[in-house]
Amino acid sequence: MVNKQIGKQTLQLNSPPSIISHYCTVGPMEGQGPLAKYFDEIVSDPLMGQTTSEKAELMILENTINSTLSNHKLTTNDLDFYIAGDLLNQIISATFSARTLALPYIGIYGACSTWAAGLGLASILTEGGYAKKVLVATSSHYQTAERQYRYPIELNVKHKPTNQYTVTGAGAAIVANQGKGPKITAVTFGKVVDFGCKDPNDMGSAMAPAALSTLIQHLEDTNRTLADYDLILTGDLARHGSKMFHIIAKEAGLSLGEKHKDAGAMIYSPQQPVGSGASGAACSATVTIGYVFKEMVQGKYRRVLLIATGALLNQLTSQQGESIPCIAHAVVLEV
Amino acid sequence: MVNKQIGKQTLQLNSPPSIISHYCTVGPMEGQGPLAKYFDEIVSDPLMGQTTSEKAELMILENTINSTLSNHKLTTNDLDFYIAGDLLNQIISATFSARTLALPYIGIYGACSTWAAGLGLASILTEGGYAKKVLVATSSHYQTAERQYRYPIELNVKHKPTNQYTVTGAGAAIVANQGKGPKITAVTFGKVVDFGCKDPNDMGSAMAPAALSTLIQHLEDTNRTLADYDLILTGDLARHGSKMFHIIAKEAGLSLGEKHKDAGAMIYSPQQPVGSGASGAACSATVTIGYVFKEMVQGKYRRVLLIATGALLNQLTSQQGESIPCIAHAVVLEV
Repeated sequence: MVNKQIGKQTLQLNSPPSIISHYCTVGPMEGQGPLAKYFDEIVSDPLMGQTTSEKAELMILENTINSTLSNHKLTTNDLDFYIAGDLLNQIISATFSARTLALPYIGIYGACSTWAAGLGLASILTEGGYAKKVLVATSSHYQTAERQYRYPIELNVKHKPTNQYTVTGAGAAIVANQGKGPKITAVTFGKVVDFGCKDPNDMGSAMAPAALSTLIQHLEDTNRTLADYDLILTGDLARHGSKMFHIIAKEAGLSLGEKHKDAGAMIYSPQQPVGSGASGAACSATVTIGYVFKEMVQGKYRRVLLIATGALLNQLTSQQGESIPCIAHAVVLEV
Repeated sequence: MVNKQIGKQTLQLNSPPSIISHYCTVGPMEGQGPLAKYFDEIVSDPLMGQTTSEKAELMILENTINSTLSNHKLTTNDLDFYIAGDLLNQIISATFSARTLALPYIGIYGACSTWAAGLGLASILTEGGYAKKVLVATSSHYQTAERQYRYPIELNVKHKPTNQYTVTGAGAAIVANQGKGPKITAVTFGKVVDFGCKDPNDMGSAMAPAALSTLIQHLEDTNRTLADYDLILTGDLARHGSKMFHIIAKEAGLSLGEKHKDAGAMIYSPQQPVGSGASGAACSATVTIGYVFKEMVQGKYRRVLLIATGALLNQLTSQQGESIPCIAHAVVLEV
């Protein structure tokens, strides 16, 4: 048996799996932002003609999965596993989408880090010979998240400048042991990091230390420096969290500069009423699929470190005065 | 690369990992049931002296993990991964326990099937060379689950005969690529199955078809029959769900008879006020660790098929009139 652990937290994929098909969908708010041209599909009605926002989120997720399959002329019979997660209690969007797919299903929860955790697990399944093709998907929806985590949207509660606006959308990818597409060459699963932040209205700042922990560990494990990457994409620290990330990275001797972009800070323009920027399980997924993969094809990026962050609180833990545990999982994407 | 998929859903573990250490804790209700002598620890105060039941669940989980480590003279430095999940929104028990462990953490959600999903993933990580030792844990608590899924316990709402009583407890195991202990020789990840049951007060019957789907697929994939197993342990269909399981299994040509036991039907005696029996993420975990592993050491069982079932609804989906998607993951345990 080959030991694929390198360093403390990083797995080296010696036969790197490929992302052979991918698709992303966003809502109208995201379609008015600076990344609009990159997204595969922008829906005009965030409710998708449904009676509830939960049904709308599910429909966006299912449509995104169907397009991921049909784009590559695949059916569910060609797939071996489905790995998915979302922000809702008991990850109902993922589960209800699994109902129609009828594939062996592993539900995961990592808040906005779910996307990278899913890609990481799919890489292990395919590289390890446990599967040939694994479907990974995540979704989020402004209205479902807002009413679950904060207030009913009908109350129109004013957001704070550090609040993040949940992305309405979904991203799906098929990770395969062979085929063309961006390759996943390493995975760094993160540890839960908690610096004692208790403000659920500033999750970006709470997540920044988790992103840094994973970045430092990844560089140490792989014996690499920032110079080895064309882009460090975090998601989703948003504007306030990104500022914090740069400050603490500098203290740790890492000068991120222009090499770092954050999915949460990229999706909306500063003129949109979104507080500090974007968040949600669909945030880093849609930016990876929409922006990163398309710019990789254009030759702008060859090697990208995706660090997807998650704030692992719930409503009750905030009310009980707990601080916010955070995590960040990283995958190396290469063409 | 060796193809480890056999049949449609089953993974063959050619270098089967071992469960080198395990520990289980239950609360006072479970300590009054027929399995009392099998559990490693029975706590007398379900609140563990804490101010909230969520903190109590976390403490039971953390204590169980600590005993799992200390029993085998291990520290977290010896471990490579932590895989955990529970019933609470955003799996907060798992996440908050991950905060103190400081290990690469993968949060999973599969309701009461979480235990088998965790063992399955840990098997892949260790057999595939991605980890040497993986900690898997699940927990549940009557009071936290009751007030989240049903009513505040202070209301003292009368339970229906088909209701299941959430186990207060936790189970933890260390899956390793070498060492002594029960071996995991195959894993069958389940598909989401939904036969249209909508009654959240009868989840056992809703889950029975998922258990049968995984059982049939497992036998087909492995080219085995019921005779190849000393015990088929489902968890947690409870009494009503088990009856349904036997009926539909018979229709499918499988006569389960005495070979089948259900964790949910075993934990409490019929005299206890628990409706149809037990449920919860800790249900199949504590019965596997408490009953199965100890009886394996005694020579009663040599090969056991654990099929952990989960009802993947949430409060909102029931209120919105959705049916209950269910899943069952299976692992083969051998000595």
